[in-house]
Amino acid sequence: MEFMIFTATTTDGTQIQDITARAGVFNQEEVDSVPEMFNEYLTLGAEGSGYHFIVYRDGEQVLGFAIYGFRDLTDGVYDLYWIAVDPNARRKSVGRKLLTACEEAVRAEGGRIMIAETSGTAEYETTREFYVSMGYVNEASIKDFYSVGDDLMIYAKRI
Amino acid sequence: MEFMIFTATTTDGTQIQDITARAGVFNQEEVDSVPEMFNEYLTLGAEGSGYHFIVYRDGEQVLGFAIYGFRDLTDGVYDLYWIAVDPNARRKSVGRKLLTACEEAVRAEGGRIMIAETSGTAEYETTREFYVSMGYVNEASIKDFYSVGDDLMIYAKRI
Repeated sequence: MEFMIFTATTTDGTQIQDITARAGVFNQEEVDSVPEMFNEYLTLGAEGSGYHFIVYRDGEQVLGFAIYGFRDLTDGVYDLYWIAVDPNARRKSVGRKLLTACEEAVRAEGGRIMIAETSGTAEYETTREFYVSMGYVNEASIKDFYSVGDDLMIYAKRI
Repeated sequence: MEFMIFTATTTDGTQIQDITARAGVFNQEEVDSVPEMFNEYLTLGAEGSGYHFIVYRDGEQVLGFAIYGFRDLTDGVYDLYWIAVDPNARRKSVGRKLLTACEEAVRAEGGRIMIAETSGTAEYETTREFYVSMGYVNEASIKDFYSVGDDLMIYAKRI
């Protein structure tokens, strides 16, 4: 398989931010968290910041990005912090390829478990189905976590 | 009730580190994480660092400490990052008083849920019993999280 997936560089910043804003499901606080993480990643590097940014690029155009990182104090647990695809680039399996690339990188680093946390609301149904289709299992949930009526759903995949 | 509980200050650092090291159950990586968090707390403040440090003091002596902080992107969820009591100061309810003080502070800030994550191993049985006795419920678990055979147990209390 050939992926058009690269480690993110400075010039990807604007397009990453743009995709996040146009994805539709994220609130302002969530949207704002991405440039913060990206700045830390650029300044401190992936290891130093704990944020590994990867992008799916088609020529110069970024069609999606993902952020994963090691969970401190564990033996081989990694969190998928973010995965987002340009709404105009659906049906190209960009999300699947990004997540697969994250998992391969984590496996190469000796990771055992990938965790994806998401919301239990109807708005995130497609996201949850995506994780399940990628082999993730909803191993744990916390009711009313993000807010009342908005549960935390923890998906895990043994990789 | 009268608590001898204070916001931690610079001079508490050495005793906090000492209690962590002598508590017995924490590994080196966990022990090392405390001074790192404490430095961030001193440098950036509780709000800036996200780490609220409180100590139980008897005169000049620190008998225990706790660290709690707001979980980003939630509406009112707080994590109890650390709670540790000097092994020579058992039976004074230091842990109960520290945790109660964390909960009261969180409630005052409008928090809804306190989360305490711990290990499922036999070594942490007393810790888990402590949380249950304080009204926490093991709402979720992830098998083999910290390492193979060492599950993550998530305790939550609606406060």
